[in-house]
Amino acid sequence: MQEKLNELKTRLWEVNDLHGAAALLYWDQATYMPPGGAEARGRQLAALSQLAQERFTDPAVGRLLDELQPYEASLPYESDEASLVRVTRRQYQRATRLPAAFVAEASQHAARSYQAWTTARPANDFAAMQPLLEKTLELSRRAAGYYGWPADGHVADALIEEADYGMTVATLRPLFAALREQLTPLVEAIQRQPAPDDSFLHRHYPEQQQWDFGVRVVERFGYDFQRGRQDKTHHPFMIKFGPGDVRITTRFHENDLGDGLFSTMHESGHAMYEQGIDPALDGTPLGGGTSAGVHESQSRLWENLVGRSRPFWSHTYPQLQAVFPDQLGDISLDSFYRAINKVQPGLTRVEADEVTYNLHVIIRFELELALLEGSLAVQDLPEAWRAAYRAALGVTVPDDRQGVLQDMHWYYSQIGGGFQGYTLGNIMSAAFWQAANAAHPEIAGQIAQGRFDTLLGWLRAHIHRHGSKFTAAELVQQITGAPLSIAPYIGYLQAKYGELYGL
Amino acid sequence: MQEKLNELKTRLWEVNDLHGAAALLYWDQATYMPPGGAEARGRQLAALSQLAQERFTDPAVGRLLDELQPYEASLPYESDEASLVRVTRRQYQRATRLPAAFVAEASQHAARSYQAWTTARPANDFAAMQPLLEKTLELSRRAAGYYGWPADGHVADALIEEADYGMTVATLRPLFAALREQLTPLVEAIQRQPAPDDSFLHRHYPEQQQWDFGVRVVERFGYDFQRGRQDKTHHPFMIKFGPGDVRITTRFHENDLGDGLFSTMHESGHAMYEQGIDPALDGTPLGGGTSAGVHESQSRLWENLVGRSRPFWSHTYPQLQAVFPDQLGDISLDSFYRAINKVQPGLTRVEADEVTYNLHVIIRFELELALLEGSLAVQDLPEAWRAAYRAALGVTVPDDRQGVLQDMHWYYSQIGGGFQGYTLGNIMSAAFWQAANAAHPEIAGQIAQGRFDTLLGWLRAHIHRHGSKFTAAELVQQITGAPLSIAPYIGYLQAKYGELYGL
Repeated sequence: MQEKLNELKTRLWEVNDLHGAAALLYWDQATYMPPGGAEARGRQLAALSQLAQERFTDPAVGRLLDELQPYEASLPYESDEASLVRVTRRQYQRATRLPAAFVAEASQHAARSYQAWTTARPANDFAAMQPLLEKTLELSRRAAGYYGWPADGHVADALIEEADYGMTVATLRPLFAALREQLTPLVEAIQRQPAPDDSFLHRHYPEQQQWDFGVRVVERFGYDFQRGRQDKTHHPFMIKFGPGDVRITTRFHENDLGDGLFSTMHESGHAMYEQGIDPALDGTPLGGGTSAGVHESQSRLWENLVGRSRPFWSHTYPQLQAVFPDQLGDISLDSFYRAINKVQPGLTRVEADEVTYNLHVIIRFELELALLEGSLAVQDLPEAWRAAYRAALGVTVPDDRQGVLQDMHWYYSQIGGGFQGYTLGNIMSAAFWQAANAAHPEIAGQIAQGRFDTLLGWLRAHIHRHGSKFTAAELVQQITGAPLSIAPYIGYLQAKYGELYGL
Repeated sequence: MQEKLNELKTRLWEVNDLHGAAALLYWDQATYMPPGGAEARGRQLAALSQLAQERFTDPAVGRLLDELQPYEASLPYESDEASLVRVTRRQYQRATRLPAAFVAEASQHAARSYQAWTTARPANDFAAMQPLLEKTLELSRRAAGYYGWPADGHVADALIEEADYGMTVATLRPLFAALREQLTPLVEAIQRQPAPDDSFLHRHYPEQQQWDFGVRVVERFGYDFQRGRQDKTHHPFMIKFGPGDVRITTRFHENDLGDGLFSTMHESGHAMYEQGIDPALDGTPLGGGTSAGVHESQSRLWENLVGRSRPFWSHTYPQLQAVFPDQLGDISLDSFYRAINKVQPGLTRVEADEVTYNLHVIIRFELELALLEGSLAVQDLPEAWRAAYRAALGVTVPDDRQGVLQDMHWYYSQIGGGFQGYTLGNIMSAAFWQAANAAHPEIAGQIAQGRFDTLLGWLRAHIHRHGSKFTAAELVQQITGAPLSIAPYIGYLQAKYGELYGL
């Protein structure tokens, strides 16, 4: 059996190396590639993705997985070996369900659609996207059909499990509904209070100083630059080429201190997750973060629960003031803390504050479900978007550019499964945070001294090192002793913003 | 036939894309990769190289080439189609001659040897390298055996044709001997004259200004930054990921103005060659420079015949002075021109001036031949190196670090075929330069006005656009109407340095 397991691992290593190489091609495309490189890069990426797909879906992999089944059954569920066979089989079954012709059709359509979106969005031209989006919806339904879903399930379940395995519409809808029910009165109460002044965040902050300060912060968090680096891009992301090379990207606006700083913290949270995975899981499907939601829980934990907290800034704010004496010398810690936590319903998801952010996500999630169910037609989507924003956030969407054309998700890949992870991540970040602080009540005090090792150590031990061994639901159960609950998250928001806004 | 040709091209595109992807992995390794990335990167590079090799040596490629033979024979030699079949067959035959087990053994040994060299060189420890180099020699001989060479040829011919197809020991030995015979008295005559002062080149030149000035120069030359970019590295190189993405790398020393500036010019010459290839040849073995020698002719032409010329600096020196007023304000154009053309026999090939450079190359070429012939044993190599440097350059080699351990070539790949291209490039650069100036006598005047378009246009039309259609010898014959001759090169050196040193 050891021989078969080794053969499986050898095959998976190769697939992993091809994915790692493709990731570097993508990274370069988003950071340094000159304009002339686009055409060849598209072909190279397609060639590598196809090779990786071919090697992974090789029937020999399926046979090995079958042959390893008795071995898997003889081992503890949480062992490296049983987990490897289990998770690889799950991914193999999913990967082999889509016909090659469908994959080619969908990826060609995605490239066309994304290309069109890059011009339609600035032109505020939803009409140009409508036929493409209708095709995307059809392809998304067909993909769901190939994957399949249980008789009592939802068509979107087949798509959600790609990034958030184990999550279903049946569990997410009530969870998100309950969350919205709690958020709406909180947002309303906050809006009745005077808004804090955050104009000083928009003074002039030279890029190099922002960069240096951000690097110092995430280095203190525990992001290892010996096994990573940071570069500039348009839309920040984290990317991994191997366990020793997990990179982050960021961007800076010289008239917006918060954008670059919190984005850097956010991506470092993703990266520390990948850097913390047990090296024994390298080169296999276990050697990466387990789901979009859990990944987002790590990025949001460092960005918000640490990076927007009072203990953190009580230690770090004097350092920030020393870097920007002209811009922040006259601003108190309290004013700064209020400014970076200002709540204001707006139009744009990625600019939203902690409290309203999930309302943006839930709107998209519900619209996706309606499209997939057929209860909403693509041509009616812009109006449905406007209505949802009016209802949930009380804002008027002036155009589709700031409305339904805002996020690339539907225009780049598929409709369904792309948004739930953001809110799952927020909910889980507070659940994990609560557990970490219960186990180590000294964490808040350490953060107020600029120390993060106890927190990072706990995250590594309970989340990071497992890679993809456990599903999100399993991790939550192991850590909190119960299924995922919104209570810690709501508790966190109510306490923090109750204090901030004197509610 | 068109169908078979298209099938061949499709297969070659994929091989090409895999090579392009591998090239990006190499570029990143040499520019931005964090230390932790090395292990996975080695595997990724090996995986892509092996895939490219597998796809290229697929027997289906051989069958297509056989089937296309009548078609090839029916077309003019210089047509795109006939050239494609001809050059692909040549490369295919070569690639299929090495057994896979040998390729694996050789590449593993090369990695081990290179690794050992990176520590043995600074430690001046040739003894540590000797057994590895003996193995390299054995592998090089075996490779030559697999490739084969004519009965009246030399074992090194089989290795030389890898990078400089068509060149043989029988042609190179007399060419290089004649060159050496002319260079030696020139160097001796120069050494009898007072040495120019070049101390001001070693004042403090801040890196950013060096960078900006170098970029401005190569942009004026015609290097297209829309289809390329420049980054920093330890050992500068040019690399291509596709016709629209041809990058250069450089380095700067703040106490050495010449190193970065001429290195930037040099790499831009390589890059303009690749940027100038006919797009119709993309994605095939024709879509790259034809040989190491012709490539080096382009880099050396821009670095030396343009970049170290009086017309160029008569226009450009005031701009350089404006960038570095404190460092060069008191230095006349004539003093600067003399300093950047100072001739001084030394120990290090890559630091050598134009006149002595080829003596370094010829020493290595002759030692390679002696090793391959068996007339020199690896253990006697350091002493043979010292003797050769004493004889050819009159210098005493104080240690192996500055002697036989100096270049990575023998420690990284094989013994044989790695050096002749440098001197071939110098010889050809002057032959091409003479032809271009004969066709366009206005070139020197244009360079003195900071214009390079006539020169670049001529190089594109006669060399660049052909890619690998013609061999080096064919290009030389087409352009000069005769086989390669050292006369233009010697004439150029004697005129330039005769004037400079008042000989």
